[in-house]
Amino acid sequence: MKPSLTFWYEFASTYSWLAAERIEALAAAAAVKVAWRPFLLGPIFAARGWASSPFNLYPAKGRNMWRDMERHCALMGLPPVKCPDPFPQNSLLAARIATALPAETRPRFSCAVYRAQFTRGKSIADRGVMTEILGDINGAAHDALAAAESSETKTALRQATEQAQSLGIYGAPSFTTGSGELFWGNDRLEQALAWAQKEAAERQEP
Amino acid sequence: MKPSLTFWYEFASTYSWLAAERIEALAAAAAVKVAWRPFLLGPIFAARGWASSPFNLYPAKGRNMWRDMERHCALMGLPPVKCPDPFPQNSLLAARIATALPAETRPRFSCAVYRAQFTRGKSIADRGVMTEILGDINGAAHDALAAAESSETKTALRQATEQAQSLGIYGAPSFTTGSGELFWGNDRLEQALAWAQKEAAERQEP
Repeated sequence: MKPSLTFWYEFASTYSWLAAERIEALAAAAAVKVAWRPFLLGPIFAARGWASSPFNLYPAKGRNMWRDMERHCALMGLPPVKCPDPFPQNSLLAARIATALPAETRPRFSCAVYRAQFTRGKSIADRGVMTEILGDINGAAHDALAAAESSETKTALRQATEQAQSLGIYGAPSFTTGSGELFWGNDRLEQALAWAQKEAAERQEP
Repeated sequence: MKPSLTFWYEFASTYSWLAAERIEALAAAAAVKVAWRPFLLGPIFAARGWASSPFNLYPAKGRNMWRDMERHCALMGLPPVKCPDPFPQNSLLAARIATALPAETRPRFSCAVYRAQFTRGKSIADRGVMTEILGDINGAAHDALAAAESSETKTALRQATEQAQSLGIYGAPSFTTGSGELFWGNDRLEQALAWAQKEAAERQEP
């Protein structure tokens, strides 16, 4: 069986964006199959007693995160980062659309949502912004928006968030392997891919 | 002028340990001079309303940190990590001793303290443990302990913590360059060294 890794991402999360930009190329080079799983960090933060992002709750941490993002964008050849207003954005609509989309469309849609939000400062809670992005990736925007609002999609996203929590996930991005090994943060992407390869190799041993 | 970087570390911090194990070799390879600056994270966390480490306050985060440490120790060829009891340890005595020691002795002393704590589970608040470590590094343990309790040392450590805060430091390890560029976390050590090199190169331009 091919090595596989689940990529847990939150649309309002800056470091989820960086991982989304990197993961497909790195996974292809490592021959690891990636499952993109959008989930919501809001309920997990709320359970911790946080009413906002820790980057807002702790201003020194927030200032350095934005500076760190500026440095990363420059190093990665991305457009300069822009902080959307408000930050964090309400990511429910984007997460529902991504949940409803076919798996093969998720990466392109998700990267487009991140770039609209973090390089052009667009509101990802805005249906017009979502319609434009869906149009650009040749999706049937009207159908995708309708599917995003279906009860099946709402349930699926709720279940994804619950599954994330039951796997011990507490931040985004996170990566989990088939055995449940959990890696937190864009900085752990390479280690997570290597672990997925190791697990697959161990399964093939007699 | 040679590139330089300040290494801000907290003795109770697991990721400060990993950075302490790596920084001298990486800095030598990058021709960057490192200043080891112990400081206390306790007052900074207290100002944030935290009565303990976030790894205790948020159990899912704490569990994954220890697992992440296990993986890092294996990857780095370090002995397996051991959680001291209690965690976090009271780091005041170790930080005062490190502050009082000559700069050239700090790296060896600090790494020995980290290994005693995180691979043998020793209490770093224990004067006996400190005496043993100072003896092992050929230090005059009695003199070092006396110097650690001097009012000059206490003031110097308090000032280091205040300076860390005024530089925007909110966690450990952190790295700052001459211009005040701030990098947080063991994962940013390579970027911090590269930034220090870049700053030195820019200073040498006409």
